[in-house]
Amino acid sequence: MSSKFEYLLPPQWNKQIELWLQEDIPSLDYGGFVVGIKEETSVLYCKSYVIVLAGVPFFNEVFRLTNCSVEWLFEEGTVINPEEQGVKKVPVAYVRGKCKDILIGERLALNIFGRCSSIATQSKRFSNLKEKEGFNGVIAGSRKTTPGFRLVEKYGMLVGGCDMHRMDLSSMIMLKDNHIWSRGNITEAVKAARSVGGFSMKIDVEVGSFEEACEAIEAGGDIIMLDNIEPPTLHEVAKNLKEKYSNKTFLLEASGGVTLDSIVNYFGPNIDIISMSGLNYGVTPVDFSLKIQKQ
Amino acid sequence: MSSKFEYLLPPQWNKQIELWLQEDIPSLDYGGFVVGIKEETSVLYCKSYVIVLAGVPFFNEVFRLTNCSVEWLFEEGTVINPEEQGVKKVPVAYVRGKCKDILIGERLALNIFGRCSSIATQSKRFSNLKEKEGFNGVIAGSRKTTPGFRLVEKYGMLVGGCDMHRMDLSSMIMLKDNHIWSRGNITEAVKAARSVGGFSMKIDVEVGSFEEACEAIEAGGDIIMLDNIEPPTLHEVAKNLKEKYSNKTFLLEASGGVTLDSIVNYFGPNIDIISMSGLNYGVTPVDFSLKIQKQ
Amino acid sequence: MSSKFEYLLPPQWNKQIELWLQEDIPSLDYGGFVVGIKEETSVLYCKSYVIVLAGVPFFNEVFRLTNCSVEWLFEEGTVINPEEQGVKKVPVAYVRGKCKDILIGERLALNIFGRCSSIATQSKRFSNLKEKEGFNGVIAGSRKTTPGFRLVEKYGMLVGGCDMHRMDLSSMIMLKDNHIWSRGNITEAVKAARSVGGFSMKIDVEVGSFEEACEAIEAGGDIIMLDNIEPPTLHEVAKNLKEKYSNKTFLLEASGGVTLDSIVNYFGPNIDIISMSGLNYGVTPVDFSLKIQKQ
Amino acid sequence: MSSKFEYLLPPQWNKQIELWLQEDIPSLDYGGFVVGIKEETSVLYCKSYVIVLAGVPFFNEVFRLTNCSVEWLFEEGTVINPEEQGVKKVPVAYVRGKCKDILIGERLALNIFGRCSSIATQSKRFSNLKEKEGFNGVIAGSRKTTPGFRLVEKYGMLVGGCDMHRMDLSSMIMLKDNHIWSRGNITEAVKAARSVGGFSMKIDVEVGSFEEACEAIEAGGDIIMLDNIEPPTLHEVAKNLKEKYSNKTFLLEASGGVTLDSIVNYFGPNIDIISMSGLNYGVTPVDFSLKIQKQ
Amino acid sequence: MSSKFEYLLPPQWNKQIELWLQEDIPSLDYGGFVVGIKEETSVLYCKSYVIVLAGVPFFNEVFRLTNCSVEWLFEEGTVINPEEQGVKKVPVAYVRGKCKDILIGERLALNIFGRCSSIATQSKRFSNLKEKEGFNGVIAGSRKTTPGFRLVEKYGMLVGGCDMHRMDLSSMIMLKDNHIWSRGNITEAVKAARSVGGFSMKIDVEVGSFEEACEAIEAGGDIIMLDNIEPPTLHEVAKNLKEKYSNKTFLLEASGGVTLDSIVNYFGPNIDIISMSGLNYGVTPVDFSLKIQKQ
Amino acid sequence: MSSKFEYLLPPQWNKQIELWLQEDIPSLDYGGFVVGIKEETSVLYCKSYVIVLAGVPFFNEVFRLTNCSVEWLFEEGTVINPEEQGVKKVPVAYVRGKCKDILIGERLALNIFGRCSSIATQSKRFSNLKEKEGFNGVIAGSRKTTPGFRLVEKYGMLVGGCDMHRMDLSSMIMLKDNHIWSRGNITEAVKAARSVGGFSMKIDVEVGSFEEACEAIEAGGDIIMLDNIEPPTLHEVAKNLKEKYSNKTFLLEASGGVTLDSIVNYFGPNIDIISMSGLNYGVTPVDFSLKIQKQ
Repeated sequence: MSSKFEYLLPPQWNKQIELWLQEDIPSLDYGGFVVGIKEETSVLYCKSYVIVLAGVPFFNEVFRLTNCSVEWLFEEGTVINPEEQGVKKVPVAYVRGKCKDILIGERLALNIFGRCSSIATQSKRFSNLKEKEGFNGVIAGSRKTTPGFRLVEKYGMLVGGCDMHRMDLSSMIMLKDNHIWSRGNITEAVKAARSVGGFSMKIDVEVGSFEEACEAIEAGGDIIMLDNIEPPTLHEVAKNLKEKYSNKTFLLEASGGVTLDSIVNYFGPNIDIISMSGLNYGVTPVDFSLKIQKQ
Repeated sequence: MSSKFEYLLPPQWNKQIELWLQEDIPSLDYGGFVVGIKEETSVLYCKSYVIVLAGVPFFNEVFRLTNCSVEWLFEEGTVINPEEQGVKKVPVAYVRGKCKDILIGERLALNIFGRCSSIATQSKRFSNLKEKEGFNGVIAGSRKTTPGFRLVEKYGMLVGGCDMHRMDLSSMIMLKDNHIWSRGNITEAVKAARSVGGFSMKIDVEVGSFEEACEAIEAGGDIIMLDNIEPPTLHEVAKNLKEKYSNKTFLLEASGGVTLDSIVNYFGPNIDIISMSGLNYGVTPVDFSLKIQKQ
Repeated sequence: MSSKFEYLLPPQWNKQIELWLQEDIPSLDYGGFVVGIKEETSVLYCKSYVIVLAGVPFFNEVFRLTNCSVEWLFEEGTVINPEEQGVKKVPVAYVRGKCKDILIGERLALNIFGRCSSIATQSKRFSNLKEKEGFNGVIAGSRKTTPGFRLVEKYGMLVGGCDMHRMDLSSMIMLKDNHIWSRGNITEAVKAARSVGGFSMKIDVEVGSFEEACEAIEAGGDIIMLDNIEPPTLHEVAKNLKEKYSNKTFLLEASGGVTLDSIVNYFGPNIDIISMSGLNYGVTPVDFSLKIQKQ
Repeated sequence: MSSKFEYLLPPQWNKQIELWLQEDIPSLDYGGFVVGIKEETSVLYCKSYVIVLAGVPFFNEVFRLTNCSVEWLFEEGTVINPEEQGVKKVPVAYVRGKCKDILIGERLALNIFGRCSSIATQSKRFSNLKEKEGFNGVIAGSRKTTPGFRLVEKYGMLVGGCDMHRMDLSSMIMLKDNHIWSRGNITEAVKAARSVGGFSMKIDVEVGSFEEACEAIEAGGDIIMLDNIEPPTLHEVAKNLKEKYSNKTFLLEASGGVTLDSIVNYFGPNIDIISMSGLNYGVTPVDFSLKIQKQ
Repeated sequence: MSSKFEYLLPPQWNKQIELWLQEDIPSLDYGGFVVGIKEETSVLYCKSYVIVLAGVPFFNEVFRLTNCSVEWLFEEGTVINPEEQGVKKVPVAYVRGKCKDILIGERLALNIFGRCSSIATQSKRFSNLKEKEGFNGVIAGSRKTTPGFRLVEKYGMLVGGCDMHRMDLSSMIMLKDNHIWSRGNITEAVKAARSVGGFSMKIDVEVGSFEEACEAIEAGGDIIMLDNIEPPTLHEVAKNLKEKYSNKTFLLEASGGVTLDSIVNYFGPNIDIISMSGLNYGVTPVDFSLKIQKQ
Repeated sequence: MSSKFEYLLPPQWNKQIELWLQEDIPSLDYGGFVVGIKEETSVLYCKSYVIVLAGVPFFNEVFRLTNCSVEWLFEEGTVINPEEQGVKKVPVAYVRGKCKDILIGERLALNIFGRCSSIATQSKRFSNLKEKEGFNGVIAGSRKTTPGFRLVEKYGMLVGGCDMHRMDLSSMIMLKDNHIWSRGNITEAVKAARSVGGFSMKIDVEVGSFEEACEAIEAGGDIIMLDNIEPPTLHEVAKNLKEKYSNKTFLLEASGGVTLDSIVNYFGPNIDIISMSGLNYGVTPVDFSLKIQKQ
């Protein structure tokens, strides 16, 4: 029995898509008047090289809201490589409906799908490296996502084989430098967090040194984020922590300045999580286009 | 009398920011409980090199909604260059308020401000080139923006000295390939568009050749977008059009595959507009951080 | 290939209709309980004389939201004249559904449809005059519409053969007396408007004299609105402007106190647009009623 | 101790005004950029003859939302008569604030205030007649209001001295022809209505004859609406009903085709309520303008 | 012809249910991913003893929103008594759909249905007593309901045979101690209420003595609420009022501290309404569970 | 440094309160017109015996939205015992503002505060028992809360010294009988959950036997919920699990039919969590009243 990431989406996630359609058509749709309601078939082409398709439920929902139907030629997660096929563009899906309804959804659907696929593609590059190097931990994103668009960006990470990290401030407690300075010290901060997070929330503590990590572990942190500790020091600190607290259960997270070029240095037997903004930062949306078929 | 781009923002634009805060804190703010309500001052640092500050009203509004105040050390549009100052990070603003209120807004404010500044920075690179080369037309963006985040991205273009192009499907009529195929031909499409757009809307027609451009001009198009016609052919076509229709008023727009490297080739005396996705595509958010001052 | 004004409506315009239903039934629908869910057919009767039917998509949507179906006996835009047919009321459509569902939508549907048709009827009176007199310009409305109901009112103008004028403050820039006084002068105001409106927005400048009109044209205004300049002075000013600036492209708009009685005086070869509130001001909603057929 | 109709407004009525501002400025406020944020004073002028000022809380709220302040020279309900004063326009209020903020609210505030005042003015004409003729009943409106704008229209009726009639389907039960046909007969319909309306809701029954009125009274109707029964038959029927059921408590409502010209015929000792659409139908918005004071 | 309480629900009442689903799944539905989209049948079991089923339309709507179908084995209002059947739990309905869709709605549907049924069950206990004792008045609820959940709670009262009392502050005017103290006296308060409530709203006046009741009746109150006057004084006061004002129409309402144990003492020939919070206060939600059938 | 539970509330939680005010006043506030805007002071009285005050931020927010101020005589969490003081009611707070504004908020504020305090009071009874008996685990609530009102109910549990358990389906993964049946077995279900929950989400597995518990622990469950296993078997199973998996970290949760009477039997050295619906089920709202002070 297999599962699709699409099943993760909550019942009303599509309300966002209605707002995005309104953003693009705040008053009248003059173009819709021009083209009218003849039934048409349009083709979604991929014009970028070696990418991972991601964002199928979002694309589908845009066109469901505009009363069109979508037929996919590939499954979500498929790697598309036009060059390999010796073509300039690869047909990926058909969108059918009234002409005006196709064009109402066109730009929004492409804006979502191109971005989601680009993040999945970049995440896949990371997860491929992980597999190739035999790293057993997870590669995770961050909360550094585009406001209002987090669901799509996190979704792209999942499709690309990475971990979403926490969704938001309500789904895991992180105690970062600002929290610890404000509360006084790590021990106090963890204690306060536990008093409201209860048994159901994990606590992730950002630390900058072995000593801080020890305090965080002893205070009951579930995850210890070793921030900006570079390899090879990172691995040494991690090893010492795992040995010193072999009777305790905790995860070690490395973070800070990790890139596609440098990540192999962060792989190691005592590192459980490597988190970064690089899964979604600075990636160029995949170039898709939607063309109505001339008859 | 000078004007600020901030004055363009409509009365309820900040509703989006409330939604973005909800995205980040859907249920409880455990971190807020940990840090409490002591009054604190935090510093916004810029850690990237040579960037343009943009997004001040958005940043301010995030913190207004969380009951904090912001004091800026630089004006919007300023170029910040830490390297020039021989430092690793430059203080840009102070945010003051209750500790929990600063941290509620922190990540959202940085997510907005870093993205807006990166687009302004990229746009500035284009507008600097334009100025250096003495190009008299405008460099404009597109509708290829992140869903729900268009206002911020278009705003960044303005701060960087570029043109936002149309905001949405309701604010200028563009007749692209899909419209023209569906309607039958350029002349019919322009006529239909005018019948509803009336005198108040401009009509921009995408064409692929000199002949199509002629048809579009004769049909009454206000702007003729020469799509994917590369220099030097582009300039020849443009010159011929301006000569042939010297008694008519229309603008010529070049579009398709323009980059920072290639744009100088698109500059020319008969080109009025160069539009592209490159002002916001693939730019990496500027690295800002917000740190509560230790006492 | 013909187009319907209905195709102009953006995807989520019907959200307004949901709010209007809530306005009419904020808590419970006692009447619905009384009549229950027997399937019924009701007839929409027109009881007013010589009117233009307008508002079909709005009427349909009210009943779609209440799970009823509508069958129309006439097309939108048809002129209905009960007197001509020697009857007191003319059946215009059938609405079928559960009794309670018909009655939930009844008053709202009539409130919309009667108002939209009355504006179309009044607009038609103006456009008929235009045709009869051979005026080549357009007759346009204004932003003086009922708050929250603009879409319906502008739509009625279109059906009646008039121009909607700009939809809102975001879809064309108008510089009126208040703007010009505040900015200092026409030239400065147009310049500032262009700096943000870019190439895609038209600029309409309100002027009160030939001199002001000259300044506005030279500053680059797309449309010059000659405010409260009455005929025959109006035509003289217009003629002089068109002659003086024969090498420039601009439109002349007449505005201020135009009525059904006076409009012929405003028709003239140099006037491109006549705008007024008279298309929707003080028109009495067309008298429609919806009656369930007794069996 | 006197009361103001303003106190009737519920806590969140102003959400509508936010939506109306969005209707007028869906994306950017180009005009706001042109005029900037200089502090200005503007004057609200009344240019219509003999009108009743109404809509003060709505006007105030528009400008509260745009951060301006309003100073009134007259109280709500005052009759303004420029002619009597020998002037063309009468200053009614001052609006102060940043120039862009005044202009954001200008058109919306005028659109509301002009409409509300026109309905109050028309209602006053009716209530003046009532007073002059010594009629002891009430003159009431209907649910035939502009969708989404009912609160403002009903409010204008109150200021003009008339009764709002029921606000909506949830605040009084009316059993009209459609209800009675569907339910079978008056007695059954009233019984069903009472079973859910309980003791707290009034029931108003529309009847077309003396016999139906008798059935409605005996069934327990609180108000009997004599629909389209014209004087003098109306008064005869009413007298007979009041005599026949002198031991019962019920009100008699006359309705159908009542106008300013005909209403005196409907006045009579046995008529408790005269209801009509004429309080808000076809009234022309009062001509107000808002002008920034030149310095 | 019979009617269902479900027909009372207004068109958009289900928007609340969407918000409730969002409350339970603010970001991702991890459980949905685990179970996937296999079609399943689940059974709704009732495990409590002697209860009244209530809330069918709400339950149905939850599952309509999650794309499931519901088949009921009993009608709303049925009394379920597992003990009588000699079983521990009674199947009440089947819910069919994709596994993830059933589980998305499960907890919300149970939370609503268990609460609504418990209020109907408690209300039924009161209405059974009324019937047994031959009391001719009504037993009514109050506005002391759970915020946001009033519709469901009032609905449960109706199903249980009681009166909902007024829905909200807009559907009947109550003048309670606070109103009367603030306004000065009963007469003034009733007069002010009538001036805006007009002929369509009932006025209910809370009084504490025979004298106050007389004032309220003479001022024109429709309902006189005898607050905290305990039997047998209550009945004496009521009798005296009904005798003294035999020529006037008014209802007498008893209120204050009425419970299932004490209510028979409040029954009497001159009492028209007994109102209380006891219909919904402190009732334990009926124990329902929804179990997917193992295959 | 102490923290208040109020700091947990996210920025826009108060939007719910606006909706609740609308529920109570959907159209007009007739009572507000009656009482007007005289400044008044009202007193919040507690009339119930031995209760815990809870819900202060919600109460404050209701009155902030209606422009009133609140002065508290006791802190949140205080135990109030009128009997001990020999009085029938204890003043708890003052609410000051315009008379109409106090009364707009009155019923809503009492409806929230009475419910929140009753849950805190009941939770306190449980946490007092825990303390008295020296139980070291936590007592936790459930998702069986009133739809739309969960935040208030969970908040009351916290104030009463209990654990909120997970807020919603997005903040901890629970695999219950339905999930396990659908997925096939515990091991598969945990694996699927981990693949999307990643490192940041805890997984709670419901089991019915020692064998299932073993499978859940070995599969990597963070919390093992022993459902409907009654003491003393419960304690035996728990002891065996803790001994068998002494090298693993997991928590044991007891659940099913726990009441105030039976909970002491569930206390034990190997039980980490006892969860139940009894913290909020069937509790009667605390009796508070708000009375305007007569002058």
